[in-house]
Amino acid sequence: MSDLDKVLAHIDADFDHAVARLFETLRIKSISTDPAYKDECRKCAEWHAADLDAIGFDAAVRDTPGHPIVVGHLRDGSGPSALFYGHYDVQPVDPLELWSRDPFAPSIETRADGSKEIKARGSSDDKGQLMTFVEACRAWKTVTGRLPIQVTVLLEGEEESGGLNLPPFLEANKDELQADFALICDTGMWDKSTPAITTTLRGLCGEEVVIHAADRDLHSGFYGSAAANPNHVLARILADLHDEQGRVTLPGFYDGVPELPDALRESWATLDFSEDAFLGEIGLSVPAGEKGRSVLEQTWSRPTAEVNGMGGGYQGAGFKTVIPAMASAKVSFRLVFDQDPHKVRAAFREFVNARLPADCRVEFHEHGSGRAVAFDISGPAFQKTQSALTDEWGRQAAFIGGGGSIPVNIEFKEKLGLDVVLTGFALNDDRIHSPNEKYDLISFQKGIRSWARILDALSR
Amino acid sequence: MSDLDKVLAHIDADFDHAVARLFETLRIKSISTDPAYKDECRKCAEWHAADLDAIGFDAAVRDTPGHPIVVGHLRDGSGPSALFYGHYDVQPVDPLELWSRDPFAPSIETRADGSKEIKARGSSDDKGQLMTFVEACRAWKTVTGRLPIQVTVLLEGEEESGGLNLPPFLEANKDELQADFALICDTGMWDKSTPAITTTLRGLCGEEVVIHAADRDLHSGFYGSAAANPNHVLARILADLHDEQGRVTLPGFYDGVPELPDALRESWATLDFSEDAFLGEIGLSVPAGEKGRSVLEQTWSRPTAEVNGMGGGYQGAGFKTVIPAMASAKVSFRLVFDQDPHKVRAAFREFVNARLPADCRVEFHEHGSGRAVAFDISGPAFQKTQSALTDEWGRQAAFIGGGGSIPVNIEFKEKLGLDVVLTGFALNDDRIHSPNEKYDLISFQKGIRSWARILDALSR
Repeated sequence: MSDLDKVLAHIDADFDHAVARLFETLRIKSISTDPAYKDECRKCAEWHAADLDAIGFDAAVRDTPGHPIVVGHLRDGSGPSALFYGHYDVQPVDPLELWSRDPFAPSIETRADGSKEIKARGSSDDKGQLMTFVEACRAWKTVTGRLPIQVTVLLEGEEESGGLNLPPFLEANKDELQADFALICDTGMWDKSTPAITTTLRGLCGEEVVIHAADRDLHSGFYGSAAANPNHVLARILADLHDEQGRVTLPGFYDGVPELPDALRESWATLDFSEDAFLGEIGLSVPAGEKGRSVLEQTWSRPTAEVNGMGGGYQGAGFKTVIPAMASAKVSFRLVFDQDPHKVRAAFREFVNARLPADCRVEFHEHGSGRAVAFDISGPAFQKTQSALTDEWGRQAAFIGGGGSIPVNIEFKEKLGLDVVLTGFALNDDRIHSPNEKYDLISFQKGIRSWARILDALSR
Repeated sequence: MSDLDKVLAHIDADFDHAVARLFETLRIKSISTDPAYKDECRKCAEWHAADLDAIGFDAAVRDTPGHPIVVGHLRDGSGPSALFYGHYDVQPVDPLELWSRDPFAPSIETRADGSKEIKARGSSDDKGQLMTFVEACRAWKTVTGRLPIQVTVLLEGEEESGGLNLPPFLEANKDELQADFALICDTGMWDKSTPAITTTLRGLCGEEVVIHAADRDLHSGFYGSAAANPNHVLARILADLHDEQGRVTLPGFYDGVPELPDALRESWATLDFSEDAFLGEIGLSVPAGEKGRSVLEQTWSRPTAEVNGMGGGYQGAGFKTVIPAMASAKVSFRLVFDQDPHKVRAAFREFVNARLPADCRVEFHEHGSGRAVAFDISGPAFQKTQSALTDEWGRQAAFIGGGGSIPVNIEFKEKLGLDVVLTGFALNDDRIHSPNEKYDLISFQKGIRSWARILDALSR
């Protein structure tokens, strides 16, 4: 029996304990974007540092101006070195009333077909995923007394809230974090049976815009039409963001956005992807975006503007005839290829200012930015990871694109010079960022087994 | 010393007690639009019925399918009969953090110039105002043992929440509520020194629109641009509601809206009104409404559409890259002359449906409707009231228009056949419907004195 086989057997035998450990971190309310949960974020970082220490890592909670970062080293072996990245922070849970249970009281639920899922905020994004890697390390260390390669684990606490403190941390700890490549577990499978390595990711530019008019809320009967209404001003600006073709209207927005390279277009065309199924699963049927683009293009290789939140005036039960003093919106731009987030942000602000009527003023707040990224899949780490995943799942692992943004990718490339192998075991129906987030129990178990195989493959 | 002089002297001598009584009702959280305050609304109705009983009225709390209505009769005297209307319910108080004190812990605050104001939700709209009338009755009854005219008091509990239960109540109690004319205290002074009788009022049509798309909130990185975003759909609809000239674009909206009659235009032109001062007082400077119309026209005689509230997606602290499952808005239309609220509602719904893209569905909720109203000021009740007000304030009382809607006017006219004399002592800076609502102490005192004089004048 090879070491790998022993490790895989141990993973299966110890799986209940792995689930119990995951539940411990899922119970911690590490919502990074809301200052009310600051202490919970630190508590979560401390839990992970202690857990890494228990495996044999030399781990510590490292302060930043925001939430802390956990770094742990286990580099007593030989072979290449890897920097693993995950994030212990989670999204907010509102609207809470749409959850079928307390988002921070994890449970295992059995579906009609007998399959099981772990339900909790963070179960898929990203605590469940990062623990697949940590548990694989634990198994190797327990069974063989060492890891197949040298590993540094870095766990961020601000991935869901702009991540402004990670880049300076990487810069300041460049030597300590040096490795041959990076590994990240924050992406998904192609489908339930097909593992995937994500090799292109869109970037992000997040903006909050606040329109102010009168110095107080007004009675719309007395002041209606005479006084500027920030709801009207904001609606007009947001409506103007897209044209009839679904294209974003910011001047210069499509600079640096080429048509999809033929090779990639052909590769994506071979994927078993049904637009009807993709949209049907969420209760929709008609692609809403840029006309003449496939859904894969729209979500993987085209830039977008989405209003993630907007609000102004009375939103409670009943009715209130008020003209609000202010209205605000949170807008995110997904970026591709060479789009510059800073230029997009400047163009958006100019766009808003140009539409600001007399008597209104505007305030902007920056919420994170990251360029798009694409990796060269011919490197050995990509090939070895693909082969290990294929062994575990019995299907050829796919190289795919991703619509979401993982800004750490570009930071790892730019600050540390690392290629990043992005893989993960989330499914499209995991409801990340939504009520009732879940992670399939099988994702967790086979995810741990996958990493055990990848660690082995990378050592050869 | 005439009876009236004795009554006026008693009002001044007893004023501290009148304030104490007002504070009792101001402490009751009678927010009618929010079901959480149902019991408080009933408590408030009971307080007012008991207070009327204490004066000598025969008063009772009358159930409706919604909040109760208080009716009290004191008709033991001679002379003409009046039906007085006020409302004991108040607006919601959010955003609570903008209040300088608890909105339901009334206090008297002294301003830099030594003048005083009563600060509390409902102090001006309408508890303070309705109590000016009640206190005038109390003074007459205390001093002379009777009222100069026969009075029925009706206090509604749903004025701020659509008032759907009042019309059937009036219909069902038509005989009991019969009178020679109606008196309402829910309007304002022309300015701090000039009392006013409001003889035209705009109508109202309140609508809530909810746009639904996917069956859950989505991650904008995975689904962005492919999935319909209700925020975008709603923003487009709301932006389309007005054209570049500030006119409302609903087809047929201006049917039944003539130009202002010359007589009224000339009368308004003589009023001492400064657009700069009106807008400057709330921190604005440029009229935002229909181009080519004066502010008085815009707010008194032109119909409007105002988005009173809108919201969709994540509005908390920080950022969340979500595509919401739904977005909603509360829109009110102010109506003038012969506009039909039901036609306006139908036109709005058609307008929204025509702009609904594939994959979205819409839900509508009705929030009250009332036609505009105009009274013939040559009637004796108007002339006598004007003369009594002029005596109290030392300035000719003005006949003015009003931008807000008091749907009860049209109901009194249509259901009970009554002319309505609308007067009141609120000031433009009372911040009704806003944080830090107040009522000047002098408004309350001279309001009571004004009603004492009006009751006397109407008996002659």
